[in-house]
Amino acid sequence: MHVIADISIVPLGVGLSLSRYVAECEKILSEAGLEPRLHAYGTNVEGEWDAVFAALRRCHEVLHELGAPRVSTNLRCGTRTDRSQTREDKVRSVVEKLDANTSE
Amino acid sequence: MHVIADISIVPLGVGLSLSRYVAECEKILSEAGLEPRLHAYGTNVEGEWDAVFAALRRCHEVLHELGAPRVSTNLRCGTRTDRSQTREDKVRSVVEKLDANTSE
Amino acid sequence: MHVIADISIVPLGVGLSLSRYVAECEKILSEAGLEPRLHAYGTNVEGEWDAVFAALRRCHEVLHELGAPRVSTNLRCGTRTDRSQTREDKVRSVVEKLDANTSE
Amino acid sequence: MHVIADISIVPLGVGLSLSRYVAECEKILSEAGLEPRLHAYGTNVEGEWDAVFAALRRCHEVLHELGAPRVSTNLRCGTRTDRSQTREDKVRSVVEKLDANTSE
Repeated sequence: MHVIADISIVPLGVGLSLSRYVAECEKILSEAGLEPRLHAYGTNVEGEWDAVFAALRRCHEVLHELGAPRVSTNLRCGTRTDRSQTREDKVRSVVEKLDANTSE
Repeated sequence: MHVIADISIVPLGVGLSLSRYVAECEKILSEAGLEPRLHAYGTNVEGEWDAVFAALRRCHEVLHELGAPRVSTNLRCGTRTDRSQTREDKVRSVVEKLDANTSE
Repeated sequence: MHVIADISIVPLGVGLSLSRYVAECEKILSEAGLEPRLHAYGTNVEGEWDAVFAALRRCHEVLHELGAPRVSTNLRCGTRTDRSQTREDKVRSVVEKLDANTSE
Repeated sequence: MHVIADISIVPLGVGLSLSRYVAECEKILSEAGLEPRLHAYGTNVEGEWDAVFAALRRCHEVLHELGAPRVSTNLRCGTRTDRSQTREDKVRSVVEKLDANTSE
């Protein structure tokens, strides 16, 4: 089952600067073949269900190994059976509507 | 790895009444031994990481089988290595602070 | 506009024990008349849109005043125009489906 | 109070194709001066607290006007008092860590 997800991982108990931990997660998600795309409040990934959630588990494990006693994740994920759809498809269909509005 | 999670699953393309679908998910989460506790905007579960995410996958699969062409989940999940903590512990520690405030 | 919401507020940079901060937020939400109902990964509230989001703003402000340099919130919120629905209604409609399944 | 937020808005009861509704929200967020940046599972915005949440309210109102009987939002938002930080700052600090790792 193919899944598109957006993941925001927060290590707790390691102070205020989280970018080092986020970078570690990007590396894990990338090595898992999920092509992470970072934005200002999370990262988009895409892949098979089990690959996505095994990688997320690995992120929690590695952040704990790096010294974070608590790790909290907020995740959105979606699956669909009516047709295949990539992340590009999702963004493109919105942009097309915006362009259509502008040119009216 | 033990995880406490809060799951909100929304089937799309099945109209406005979602309670039948939510009830199916409660059943799946319960049969997986995750002791779901329903609230007005999601359900709390608790268990081993792989059991939680296998059950979430099953929820998506079953909602698709029941006719939902799209299923979207919002999930919060947390792990900790400093000490074991149940859902009761989390709620109790807040309530104790509230009681202490009130009796000041 | 009436809104049902579920709020999870996390102060960053204040160590691991967050219950004191969560208790402060419960107090704010309660005094705003939003009848917060705490669960293990957030709290449910219900009220007018502006009251809910003014109270959430107050939570961020107070946690900053209490010493948290960063505050991060994850929120779900829903509005509907087809009919009025309370939090009790939402939970009840799921429980009725579960009971119907069990007695089949 | 400055806030960075990530918003995912889902209209329910309008079928499967949501891009038209998402495009309307992008327009509202843009006209409110929040410089929305769309990704595959939401949109990033940045601005003053009251401006962000007034625009989110407007999104719910407009989607209802366009025929959606239910609208559900998932939102992440963060404030900080230790220093000012833009969305670019957040992404850049992670990318710098990734670059440092790669060149080791």
